Amino acid sequence: MTTPLRIGIAGLGTVGAGTFRLLRDNADLIERAAGRPLRVTAISARDRGRDRGIDLAGCLWVDNPLDLVTHPAVDVVVELVGGEDGVARALVEAALGQGKPVVTANKALLAHHGTAIGRLSRARRVPLGFEAAVAGGIPIIKALREGLAANRVTRVYGILNGTCNYVLSAMQQTQRDFGDILAEAQQLGYAEADPGLDIDGIDAAHKLAILAGVAFGTPVDLKAVYVEGIRHISALDIAYADELGYRIKLLGLARRTPQGIEQRVHPCMVPSSNPLAAVDGVFNAVVVEGDVVGRVVLQGRGAGAGPTASAVVADLIDIASGRGHAAQLADAPTGDASRSVGMEHHLGGCYIRLMVQDQPGVIADVAAALRNERISMEAMLQRGRAPGGTVPVVLTTHPGEEQAMRRALGEIALLAAMTEPPRMIRIET
Amino acid sequence: MTTPLRIGIAGLGTVGAGTFRLLRDNADLIERAAGRPLRVTAISARDRGRDRGIDLAGCLWVDNPLDLVTHPAVDVVVELVGGEDGVARALVEAALGQGKPVVTANKALLAHHGTAIGRLSRARRVPLGFEAAVAGGIPIIKALREGLAANRVTRVYGILNGTCNYVLSAMQQTQRDFGDILAEAQQLGYAEADPGLDIDGIDAAHKLAILAGVAFGTPVDLKAVYVEGIRHISALDIAYADELGYRIKLLGLARRTPQGIEQRVHPCMVPSSNPLAAVDGVFNAVVVEGDVVGRVVLQGRGAGAGPTASAVVADLIDIASGRGHAAQLADAPTGDASRSVGMEHHLGGCYIRLMVQDQPGVIADVAAALRNERISMEAMLQRGRAPGGTVPVVLTTHPGEEQAMRRALGEIALLAAMTEPPRMIRIET
Repeated sequence: MTTPLRIGIAGLGTVGAGTFRLLRDNADLIERAAGRPLRVTAISARDRGRDRGIDLAGCLWVDNPLDLVTHPAVDVVVELVGGEDGVARALVEAALGQGKPVVTANKALLAHHGTAIGRLSRARRVPLGFEAAVAGGIPIIKALREGLAANRVTRVYGILNGTCNYVLSAMQQTQRDFGDILAEAQQLGYAEADPGLDIDGIDAAHKLAILAGVAFGTPVDLKAVYVEGIRHISALDIAYADELGYRIKLLGLARRTPQGIEQRVHPCMVPSSNPLAAVDGVFNAVVVEGDVVGRVVLQGRGAGAGPTASAVVADLIDIASGRGHAAQLADAPTGDASRSVGMEHHLGGCYIRLMVQDQPGVIADVAAALRNERISMEAMLQRGRAPGGTVPVVLTTHPGEEQAMRRALGEIALLAAMTEPPRMIRIET
Repeated sequence: MTTPLRIGIAGLGTVGAGTFRLLRDNADLIERAAGRPLRVTAISARDRGRDRGIDLAGCLWVDNPLDLVTHPAVDVVVELVGGEDGVARALVEAALGQGKPVVTANKALLAHHGTAIGRLSRARRVPLGFEAAVAGGIPIIKALREGLAANRVTRVYGILNGTCNYVLSAMQQTQRDFGDILAEAQQLGYAEADPGLDIDGIDAAHKLAILAGVAFGTPVDLKAVYVEGIRHISALDIAYADELGYRIKLLGLARRTPQGIEQRVHPCMVPSSNPLAAVDGVFNAVVVEGDVVGRVVLQGRGAGAGPTASAVVADLIDIASGRGHAAQLADAPTGDASRSVGMEHHLGGCYIRLMVQDQPGVIADVAAALRNERISMEAMLQRGRAPGGTVPVVLTTHPGEEQAMRRALGEIALLAAMTEPPRMIRIET
């Protein structure tokens, strides 16, 4: 067992260089945990000349990452190229196809092609590690696959995107508006120049699709994920949430319902007492609800070179010590878990904010629209007066079906007194 | 791989019966996770006639638990007898000695004999699973051994005893005193009739000693754990903590210091912003600080049939699928991690509460006693006056060495104006 595990790394960006450094800096304890040394023998990246502050001497440089698959001095391929298709996909499929284990941090790839890639891994009985693809350094994939494996998971949900959580936390702490905080986050490097992937919930949806596949043993089905981002959240909503005892968080949620698996990413009103309410800044957190264990919460850094490298190397240690798994991402669906349920059937309470002309009778019209859809109001707040002007009216509802809620909002939007479209944020308890 | 794993369970108390039920109720998904069925083939418990609400037909009943070790229809022994010596120890040592894997939830056994038992497991290369021994359903042992295995752990700490956390949370919520709440907890079944093992910190010390062994790869050294319980915490301290922005929690902490490993269990003032501050009631939570991943927090139920069975069965699944480990509890100590540091060298800030006669000059005497030991005050609170009567004086200090702090408190205790011994609670940041 003292034969080294020989590693070929494709991609030397932040995470690739971080992985390289971690394998070097903590080589002693990594070897102790794995029972054998882990050695980077080959590297492939775009620019050979770039100074990454690491000494690549002793590693073979391979221009074409696909050559890592066939190279005899590579036992396992680490894919850190990124992207849902192209080189990353070709590399992962080729390696698994040739029986070479793969470790990847690529959530987009697995969200789009996880089922096919999972099938390949299972058919060839080749380990596929993807701990780093979801929630960075938090060992959530291992917790679901192994630590909590005796549980029937009823719900898994969490804060899966650090950029959104940073923006929402900063809005909450400073009472400033979305645009302001986003611009600041971009300056600080917490948000990309093109922030859509994060801000519009797409990155969280990638991670949720993978998480749901592992938690419920169903194929990864990104198309079944309802996605809504945080662009429409205003400082006013944040303030009202606070007043009502909630925090606004972008959550990814997957839930087993009698009708099938529900998957959704959207801003949520989370009660202040929920463990996720206190998770601020760039941190991620995932809640698993199991039928036997109850609620388990895991929290940590969801991105960055260190946390992601920590997860990549944990997968490599598992493979080195013979504990690697074939992917669970393409299991035969079991029973009702196979179907996915559309968002229109989602059942839940809502926070609704209306901007209305301050005149008699408006509340009565709003109440009637809700009553017509059999939606029951829980609370209503109208603070301050501005006769003739515009005032916010905020209300929360008891749980109702999404499609009824949308019809009611459609009707409310048409009322003459509305000066802006109604805003709705779902309440998650 | 469809040969069943045949399990012999010793002990059919709450956890034993829970494990039996879980293996039966979730047999389908457990088989899927393990790649083969898990079957209880033999049982040994004290009272064969007792009705436990489970059907033992089809299981062999064995009067002497040690017979499970030699029985040809038992592949793995699950020790749920409890107790640090006697049958439990004999059973675990015999099974490992004969090359039969063991799963145990027995923290007292491992805290006292973990190093010897770990050596046996490693020498014979026989898996020893003990996830259930620490923090119930939270997969913290797996996280430390595998999920975070690439990290050098700098500190691991947490809420490891649900009874103490319940009592402290209830004191905080109701402003009532320790004795009251403990009596209530005993009535509700959250505390034992003889509560010493929990309330005096011994159970937490058992878990911490195991946790430290796994986190730092050092022998389990229960004697090196400084232990202090929660009996002396008063409603007054809880109220002051709140005012100063802290919560009082019984923590178990193990930390790597330049001088060696520090292990301690005592009530702590935890800043309200720390994730542990919000963990209330019978929940447990563990924080791991790794050099690469940063801070990871795991939270969940620390006791009870369900959570504990969840952990026991997770270990069985690992063994069934060939992922079981030999224990890491007896590794050769590496470098400075081998030494343990005594509590007298602990460096930290303190909360000190004095009950003093309200007369001029007392604060000056207290300040002088601290200055003599080079301990620097951070804040001081004297609220209200009671000329001639007794008033509380509360102060917090900047970090100082434990032995200096104790000398200063000894000096303060001798001041004529003191009407009670000084109370000290360490601040953990």
